[in-house]
Amino acid sequence: MLGCSAFIRRHHFFIRSLGCYTNTQTHHHNGMSCVMSGSGLESDALGILRSITPSLDPTKHKGQAGKIAVIGGCREYTGAPYFSAISALKIGADLSHVFCTKDAAPVIKGYSPELIVHPILEESYSVRDEDKRSILDKVLAEVEKWMERFDCLVVGPGLGRDPFLLDCVSNIMKHARQSNVPIVIDGDGLFLVTNCLDLISGYPLAILTPNVNEYKRLVQKVLECEVNDQAASEQLLSLAKRIGGVTILRKGKSDLISDGETVRSVSIYGSPRRCGGQGDILSGSVAVFVSWARQYISTAPKGELITNPTMLGCIAGSALTRKAASIAFDNKRRSTLTSDIIECLGRSLEEICPVN
Amino acid sequence: MLGCSAFIRRHHFFIRSLGCYTNTQTHHHNGMSCVMSGSGLESDALGILRSITPSLDPTKHKGQAGKIAVIGGCREYTGAPYFSAISALKIGADLSHVFCTKDAAPVIKGYSPELIVHPILEESYSVRDEDKRSILDKVLAEVEKWMERFDCLVVGPGLGRDPFLLDCVSNIMKHARQSNVPIVIDGDGLFLVTNCLDLISGYPLAILTPNVNEYKRLVQKVLECEVNDQAASEQLLSLAKRIGGVTILRKGKSDLISDGETVRSVSIYGSPRRCGGQGDILSGSVAVFVSWARQYISTAPKGELITNPTMLGCIAGSALTRKAASIAFDNKRRSTLTSDIIECLGRSLEEICPVN
Repeated sequence: MLGCSAFIRRHHFFIRSLGCYTNTQTHHHNGMSCVMSGSGLESDALGILRSITPSLDPTKHKGQAGKIAVIGGCREYTGAPYFSAISALKIGADLSHVFCTKDAAPVIKGYSPELIVHPILEESYSVRDEDKRSILDKVLAEVEKWMERFDCLVVGPGLGRDPFLLDCVSNIMKHARQSNVPIVIDGDGLFLVTNCLDLISGYPLAILTPNVNEYKRLVQKVLECEVNDQAASEQLLSLAKRIGGVTILRKGKSDLISDGETVRSVSIYGSPRRCGGQGDILSGSVAVFVSWARQYISTAPKGELITNPTMLGCIAGSALTRKAASIAFDNKRRSTLTSDIIECLGRSLEEICPVN
Repeated sequence: MLGCSAFIRRHHFFIRSLGCYTNTQTHHHNGMSCVMSGSGLESDALGILRSITPSLDPTKHKGQAGKIAVIGGCREYTGAPYFSAISALKIGADLSHVFCTKDAAPVIKGYSPELIVHPILEESYSVRDEDKRSILDKVLAEVEKWMERFDCLVVGPGLGRDPFLLDCVSNIMKHARQSNVPIVIDGDGLFLVTNCLDLISGYPLAILTPNVNEYKRLVQKVLECEVNDQAASEQLLSLAKRIGGVTILRKGKSDLISDGETVRSVSIYGSPRRCGGQGDILSGSVAVFVSWARQYISTAPKGELITNPTMLGCIAGSALTRKAASIAFDNKRRSTLTSDIIECLGRSLEEICPVN
C-alpha cells in the first residue's frame, strides 16, 4: 500500500509518461483510488506505440522481435486463433504459435503456412474418463517444453467451453504464471477466468480484453453490481484493483484501460463495422506490444522506468487495431471483414512508426 | 593434400572465379589454410548467379531446369517444407517434391497444387515397435524409386525430431550420398547431422545452412570450442575442412560460406525482419542453384571448370534470397512475412538476370 504523497507522486509520473496533457482531474477517495475523467483520460497512444516498438536491426536474429503463442482453436472454432496469431506476425513478431485441438489444427495450418500449429489439446468427446489424467499430463508436458520460449500467451480465441479442454487450459495458465509469461485473455478464456478468478488474481502480467457482454459478467461476478456507464473509469479501476492489479482493456466506442492504479482511454477512430474477429486482432496485437513494452522498460535508463508494460501494450495494441480498422473501412465500407483489417496492420504501423 | 604451390595456384583461381576484387589478403598457415579477411571476402554474387542460371530454351523439356525434393513436414510443422519447395519452383526448377508424414501431406498439398507431396514418412506415435523395421524398408523403397531423378535434396525443413523419423531420414541421406545427389541440410536436419556427423563427413555435395544457434552447436560439437566472431572466416574454414570438405553457409548479417578451401561472403542488403521461414526460402534457393551450378560446370569448356558448384550455388542462393527479402521489406516493412519474400523471388531474379 502506497502512502498518499507517494501515490500522488507516482500518479503524476503516470500522467507524464502516459501523455495526459489536458483537463487532468484527480479524485482522491478511499485513500487509494485516483481517477481522471473526461478528455484527460486520453493517452498519447501513438507516442507510446512509437516508444515501445523496437528498432529493426540487421544484427538481430530470429525470435528477438517476439515469440507469441495463442491457446485456442477447437472443433467448432478455427478462425479466431488464426486471426490472433497472424496479427501478431503482421505487426512484427518473429514467431507465432497456435496450440489447439487435433481437429482444428489442419484447418488452422491451412489458413497460413506462416504459423506453427500444435495439435495437442483434446475435447471431452474424444477422451475416455479413465484417460483424462494421462492426457492432461501429456498436454502439459508438451506445452511446458515450449513455455519458456514465449514472450506472451493469448488464451481464449476460439477456445470453446468444453470442460476437459478448459481444465487443461487452466493448468497451462498456472504454468505460464509460474514462468512469469504475460497472458492476454479474451473470448472463452474470459469465461474461464470469470468462473475461476484465482487463475489470474494478483498476477500483474494478466491482461483481460472483455467486450460489452464479457465485461458485464466480470463486473457482476467480481463487484457484485451492474455496469455503471456514468462512472465507467472508476468502476473499471475498482474492478482491476479488486482482481489484484490485473490489466483490463474494456472494448467499446473508446477503449478504456486500467491496471487498478490508473485509467486511460484510446479513442482513435476505428470502424463502425462490428464483424466477428476484430477482438482477435486486438488480442494478438496486445500480445506483441506487451512483449515489446517489457523489453523497452527492461532496457530503458533507470530514471525512465516509467510505467506498467501491460498498460503500455494495451494502449499501443488498441491504437494500432483501431487505425487499421479505420483504413480498412475507408476502403471496403460495409463489406469490411477481419481479414481486410489484418491486411491494413502493416500500413498502419508504418504510418504511425515508420521503419526509418 | 595439395602441395603449397598447387594450393596457391588454386587459390588464385578461386579469387578470380569468385570475383574477389579488392583488398585480397592471403594468410598461409598450417601449410594448408588460406583465408581472406575484410572486404576481400565479398564474392561477385550477382555475376555468379548470372553465370550459372541456365538459358531458357523452347527445345528443353520438363525436368531439365531442375528436380528438387524436400524431406520434411510432420504433424507439427508444415509451413517450412512448403516454403522451401515452392521457392525452388518460383526460382525456376521444373519439379518440386515434398516427402513428409501422412499427417502433414494434406496440409502441404493444400498450400499449393504446384507441389508433388508424398505422404510416406512416419513418426513414432503411429508405429508399433515390431513394425518399425518393415516400415523403414517400405519408406526407403519408396524414396529409392525417386532418388535418381532428383538434382538436389533439401533435408530438414519442418522435419521435427522424432527418433524413428530421423532414423528413416538418416537412411535416405545415405542413399542420396551413394547416388551422388547433393543434399542441402537445414533446421532439424542440422540437429540430425550434428549428432551424427558420419552422415555427411567427407561428402563434398553436402551443404549445411546453419543459423546462429545451429552454428553454435556445430562449432561446439566439431571444433570443441565456442564461436569466435573475431576470426569468423578462419573458424568457418576450419569447421568445413574438419567435416571433410562439406560446404557451410553460415547465415547472419552477412552470409559467410566455406567449403574448407576458401571462404566467401555475401553482404547484399536483405531485410532486418527475422520472421520464421526465411531460412526455408534459402534452402530451396540453394538447392536450385547448386543443381544449375553442377550443370554449368559439367558443360563449361574444360579450361573454365572454375570452382566448386556447392560454393557457387550457396553464393547465388544467398544473393537471390537477400535481394528478394529487400524488395519485400521495401514494400511491406515491419509486416513482411516469408510469403511476401517468396512473391519477390521472380522479380529479383529477373532484375539480376533478365530472361533476354
